[in-house]
Amino acid sequence: MQQSEQEQQKEQKITQNEIPDLIINPYEVVNNSKKQIDYDKLIQSFGCQRIEQNHLERIQALTQKPVHHYLRRGIFFSHRDLNQVLDAYEAGKGFYLYTGRGPSGDSMHVGHLMPFIFTKYLQEAFDVPVVIELSDDEKFFHKSETTLEEYQRYGYENAKDIIACGFDVNKTFIFLSSKYAGHMYHNICKFQHAITYSQLRGIFGLNESDNCGKVAYPAVQAAPSLSSSFRHIFGKDEVMCLVPQGIDQDPYFRMTRDVCYKLKVPKTGCIHSQFLPGLHGFGTKMGTTDPTSAIFLTDSPKEIEEKIKKHALSGGGMTKKEHQEKGADLTVDVPYHYLRFFLEDDARLEEIRVQYGKGVMMTSEVKKELITVLTKIITEHQQRRALVTDEMVQKFMELRPLSNYPPKKNN
Amino acid sequence: MQQSEQEQQKEQKITQNEIPDLIINPYEVVNNSKKQIDYDKLIQSFGCQRIEQNHLERIQALTQKPVHHYLRRGIFFSHRDLNQVLDAYEAGKGFYLYTGRGPSGDSMHVGHLMPFIFTKYLQEAFDVPVVIELSDDEKFFHKSETTLEEYQRYGYENAKDIIACGFDVNKTFIFLSSKYAGHMYHNICKFQHAITYSQLRGIFGLNESDNCGKVAYPAVQAAPSLSSSFRHIFGKDEVMCLVPQGIDQDPYFRMTRDVCYKLKVPKTGCIHSQFLPGLHGFGTKMGTTDPTSAIFLTDSPKEIEEKIKKHALSGGGMTKKEHQEKGADLTVDVPYHYLRFFLEDDARLEEIRVQYGKGVMMTSEVKKELITVLTKIITEHQQRRALVTDEMVQKFMELRPLSNYPPKKNN
Repeated sequence: MQQSEQEQQKEQKITQNEIPDLIINPYEVVNNSKKQIDYDKLIQSFGCQRIEQNHLERIQALTQKPVHHYLRRGIFFSHRDLNQVLDAYEAGKGFYLYTGRGPSGDSMHVGHLMPFIFTKYLQEAFDVPVVIELSDDEKFFHKSETTLEEYQRYGYENAKDIIACGFDVNKTFIFLSSKYAGHMYHNICKFQHAITYSQLRGIFGLNESDNCGKVAYPAVQAAPSLSSSFRHIFGKDEVMCLVPQGIDQDPYFRMTRDVCYKLKVPKTGCIHSQFLPGLHGFGTKMGTTDPTSAIFLTDSPKEIEEKIKKHALSGGGMTKKEHQEKGADLTVDVPYHYLRFFLEDDARLEEIRVQYGKGVMMTSEVKKELITVLTKIITEHQQRRALVTDEMVQKFMELRPLSNYPPKKNN
Repeated sequence: MQQSEQEQQKEQKITQNEIPDLIINPYEVVNNSKKQIDYDKLIQSFGCQRIEQNHLERIQALTQKPVHHYLRRGIFFSHRDLNQVLDAYEAGKGFYLYTGRGPSGDSMHVGHLMPFIFTKYLQEAFDVPVVIELSDDEKFFHKSETTLEEYQRYGYENAKDIIACGFDVNKTFIFLSSKYAGHMYHNICKFQHAITYSQLRGIFGLNESDNCGKVAYPAVQAAPSLSSSFRHIFGKDEVMCLVPQGIDQDPYFRMTRDVCYKLKVPKTGCIHSQFLPGLHGFGTKMGTTDPTSAIFLTDSPKEIEEKIKKHALSGGGMTKKEHQEKGADLTVDVPYHYLRFFLEDDARLEEIRVQYGKGVMMTSEVKKELITVLTKIITEHQQRRALVTDEMVQKFMELRPLSNYPPKKNN
């Protein structure tokens, strides 16, 4: 059987990456190298494509807006079928953005904001619908620390933080996976039907004592990448989907794309981001178990200042003299890296890179700059979040058409 | 860990039966003995309970009606927690009936009618709500011969046959699993969360090249046995569930009951039926691939007559003389066995058993009697089915309260 051979080749592609010191999958990101991940190798290992200068130029030309600094700086660095998505947009068919969050605990950190900040930029630039999945079921199966009802509650709380990123309620649909699954169950069935247990085990590293939800769930994450999962938005139209995501989520969408091929629908487009490191350095985790590991969206200006001053790993010299002689090691320096993510001003960032790298600028100065930037971002976020009511959450979750679909004709 | 030991014991219970010549699970019933299955051994192997005379007396006393001949004749022969269900009924809390059908093809045979005939009797006798699942998703995962959409269509067609059994629309809710799953997805998640892949493999004999739907689906079949899957009927009440079913479905409900225990909700009650044999004899299958193997609900009187005359395996003697000397072997005789299922008159059945067993009555006479009985059942069914409109199907599928819940007070 020729087809089964072809399928097997695909299955081989869908394996974990095999870079030493590195484990990346949706449930585990471990970087034991203590340096930034070699994202070029990761692209090779995952079989995705680098985002090139010509993509940036094309996006700028299509949107008539400067591209986001996440794109300019290669923080969103990799993609799958981005060109096809842009083709669909250019042809006037439009596309939609799908991203999500696994709700866990009431407290999100700045790293969690990234996909939403970027998705909001894409939404504004392209004026396309956004769907956002809160995967309470995934957390229930995988984290399993509390009840499904409690993960649902986390989902509603996290929705407020997402809404506070500034999404337009007329253009955005947010849904709790456990509440919305019925509307996409026909697509969930099709994904479950098209994937074997052994393929899934290969992709996600499941073992036999894992609960069955872990086997059932990948189809739930895949289903929103088919526009037929959102009849209230797209009717019967077949619309391409682009998924902004951390690169750790790519296994889900490799699987999704293989099934799209079998189902004869357009493959889901992907655009991948790098990881924001924990304050303690590359390869360290952010989490509530160690509050000094991350800046949380609920932190006060004083907490932000203290965390960055005391805990953000510096790549500067041990002594002033050493620093002035050798400069800062930017490959391990957390404050500089955070500025790459959060300081929008390119010229200022470049100045810091050069001056700090040379040892002219001191760590304390860079940290001070980061404190200013992050305090502004977090404080403004908190102000916006305080205004998000339960009624607003309900509005975002209401089944309804969105104002920017179908797309207006370009010409 | 004491609990894990206990769980392991449970898991061991949840294995396939190990009677020689017999495979019974929801996907395969193979009886190579050519005689009727030894249901006593099956009860032992499955760990369920025999329905005893005292159950029949209790049901008759509670319902003030003669018990159905399926109960009188041990065709429904086994149960789990039937007493607890009757206790709940007696205490005025009520219970509900849940049964279902995996839609496959437009054509149902008389064997498919049995659980519905019996469920309708129970509904009338106890005046309790009935929910009926059409598991198009199950067939899509397991039979996988056509699209999900086609199995949905089969589901709607089969619903007409079910409705034609005479269910009261005010007391019955029929749902297509792929359309209704969203309403019970919270319970589906809880079942998926509580069962491991290896347990499921033990119960259903899955292998790793099976599609993931087969792993996900058992929770979908389990979910309707929790009343919280039907808020439009039961609100927030916790109501006991009784599932009339072929004994082959028991593995699903053994699993369900173990999870009920973990979820601290009442265990699902079960009541199990024997199998109707194929026309060609015990151990033969009924199916559309061989139209002579079964009486279909679409058969004409002429087809019924021909099939029974030509194809129903006789246990009578090879010659008239031999028959008169030895009598008929009722342990292999199909016409007699069919009369056990479909001839309601106990006295007449007993007369046939004695006279035919002695060789006084000839096979041709018994067959003639069966033809009369089945032609009446099928013809009347066809008349009722012809009156079932798409609008009626929609009414049965509408989300709404049912008129017989909450139960009226007994006293």
